Amino acid sequence: MTVLQTEKPLLRVLAGESVRPLPFWLMRQAGRYLPEYRAVRKQTKDFLSLCLTPDLATEVTLQPIRRYHPDAAILFADILLIPFGMGQKLAFVEGEGPVLEPIRRSEDLGKLDVSRVDEVLAPVMQTVRNLRRELPADVALIGFAGAPWTVATYMVEGGSSRNFEHTKAWAYGDENGFRQLMEKLVDSTSHYLLAQIEAGAEVIQLFDTWAGALPEFAFRRFCIEPTRRIVSRVRARYPHVPIMGFPRGAGMMLADYISETGVDGVSLDPFVPAHWAAEWLQPTCILQGNLDPMMLVTGGQAMQAEIERILGALGGSRYIFNLGHGILPQTPPEHVAELAEIVRSWRG
Amino acid sequence: MTVLQTEKPLLRVLAGESVRPLPFWLMRQAGRYLPEYRAVRKQTKDFLSLCLTPDLATEVTLQPIRRYHPDAAILFADILLIPFGMGQKLAFVEGEGPVLEPIRRSEDLGKLDVSRVDEVLAPVMQTVRNLRRELPADVALIGFAGAPWTVATYMVEGGSSRNFEHTKAWAYGDENGFRQLMEKLVDSTSHYLLAQIEAGAEVIQLFDTWAGALPEFAFRRFCIEPTRRIVSRVRARYPHVPIMGFPRGAGMMLADYISETGVDGVSLDPFVPAHWAAEWLQPTCILQGNLDPMMLVTGGQAMQAEIERILGALGGSRYIFNLGHGILPQTPPEHVAELAEIVRSWRG
Repeated sequence: MTVLQTEKPLLRVLAGESVRPLPFWLMRQAGRYLPEYRAVRKQTKDFLSLCLTPDLATEVTLQPIRRYHPDAAILFADILLIPFGMGQKLAFVEGEGPVLEPIRRSEDLGKLDVSRVDEVLAPVMQTVRNLRRELPADVALIGFAGAPWTVATYMVEGGSSRNFEHTKAWAYGDENGFRQLMEKLVDSTSHYLLAQIEAGAEVIQLFDTWAGALPEFAFRRFCIEPTRRIVSRVRARYPHVPIMGFPRGAGMMLADYISETGVDGVSLDPFVPAHWAAEWLQPTCILQGNLDPMMLVTGGQAMQAEIERILGALGGSRYIFNLGHGILPQTPPEHVAELAEIVRSWRG
Repeated sequence: MTVLQTEKPLLRVLAGESVRPLPFWLMRQAGRYLPEYRAVRKQTKDFLSLCLTPDLATEVTLQPIRRYHPDAAILFADILLIPFGMGQKLAFVEGEGPVLEPIRRSEDLGKLDVSRVDEVLAPVMQTVRNLRRELPADVALIGFAGAPWTVATYMVEGGSSRNFEHTKAWAYGDENGFRQLMEKLVDSTSHYLLAQIEAGAEVIQLFDTWAGALPEFAFRRFCIEPTRRIVSRVRARYPHVPIMGFPRGAGMMLADYISETGVDGVSLDPFVPAHWAAEWLQPTCILQGNLDPMMLVTGGQAMQAEIERILGALGGSRYIFNLGHGILPQTPPEHVAELAEIVRSWRG
């Protein structure tokens, strides 16, 4: 553990050390903004095949590492692999996003089989093993999964959604039934994350992209509570693997999220004021993120000023630079190089 | 003023009195969930004609008053009447929402003529005058406009948007140019709101639906600052007309929004924890809202429990019951009647 900590700046920050230059990585750093990613993507049947073909998933994970040498690689996969692994029909339709055969009532839960996940998602573990072998010695490997609430929204709506109306109708109107779905997600997700760690993931991140759509009582029940249970199961087996949460849009609920789920740290979306997070969150946890991905599209002086503002507020210690959400497809790759340079040269 | 205050419960709360039963109204209470609204809408050429035909706009504003007798009517209009009034091409396309000829560069700002607004939006003032004549004596009349940032997103994107990429590209990359657009919006919006008050609006609400898409520095520049200027212009002429703000998604920035814009109160979206708002905001301002509109779709015990939770946290004084966003089209009208009954019978 000590050896790893000295070799990988990101793991050293997660262990509480103050590190310069400050480590960074970027959400969706392997993605459509890179021509080499689009080239690989073009050769694959569909997005799902890309996730489940270890050589290709390994290759696209490594692409941004070669270009920018960030301090972490994040496994190339998708949060919807869990419902797919449990047997829900899933397709990624070009220009439309994911399409699932929706599950909206307790009676449909029998279609989901947690015991299939291991076998269906075995290729993901091969990707993790490949990456541990191929990554530079100073680059940490982050595994991840979607948090139950966010994954449930796709499972229930049958895809992306604006108001989450079917999911909320179920969660608000038949809470016991909905809890059974959450239960299956807690089980399969815990299991999946443990397998990622066994295969070599050194940090875990839980993405709860739609946490911000929940009013407080529901945020406690459907975001905090299932996350808490996943964290406690993973930690029981691997107490030293850091777990980061990303309850996007959680706002002032972040403090409760951190203390009640037990995560080691959180990613900050662009809407959390950095100085607020520095005052109220950073004393007890690791922070990550905060830059508006549109800033990376714009680039130039505005980007530089905003990066420096964020670093000034959060960069002291317990901080990993990142965006507040995934890189947008229209991002010019040279802006990412500029960002890396600004963060690396900052010594505040 | 004293007479009005004793007659209209909503104005009494805004004047700081504790009132029972607690007043309520609902955002988008005149809308597609009502069959009588759909009947009127079917007879009109398009949504814009409905907004600009005083007899019809008056009729649809009054429909929910007849059904539920809430404590306020909100003028039936649209936040995009301001760009339309300045000469930007606007159409509401069935099933698609608003479509505007986008304005994305300083050079295009010449197309916008603030001096046209008065004449083009004269029908709106006729609607306000009609409503003051026809509303029951205990129902307050709320006028409104979109806040500059939110209106700008539609003007620049050319319609609805997910990432506001053109708007942010302009705001981040050419701030001086973008400020000229905001300037025109501050001018035309202030003027339009003053005209509504002259015609009879008793309360003003500023909707900043997409405020939550802004990181802190941009929230200060493009949400707080233009709102502050509108508030100060309106207040200079009509110091006794309450002004409510709705910076949706503002989260922990709400306190700064209130103190720096000078609004008398704010609407709370569903994601603001009620007890937080009670502790940090209510001592200095009037609050409104907070119920997830999906709760009104679900109805039943879950809705009742959530309404009572919100009333328990906020209902003491300085509070007007409302949703945290507009009524959804799929809302059963009978659920609105249940909500009205729960709020009216609450005596906590």
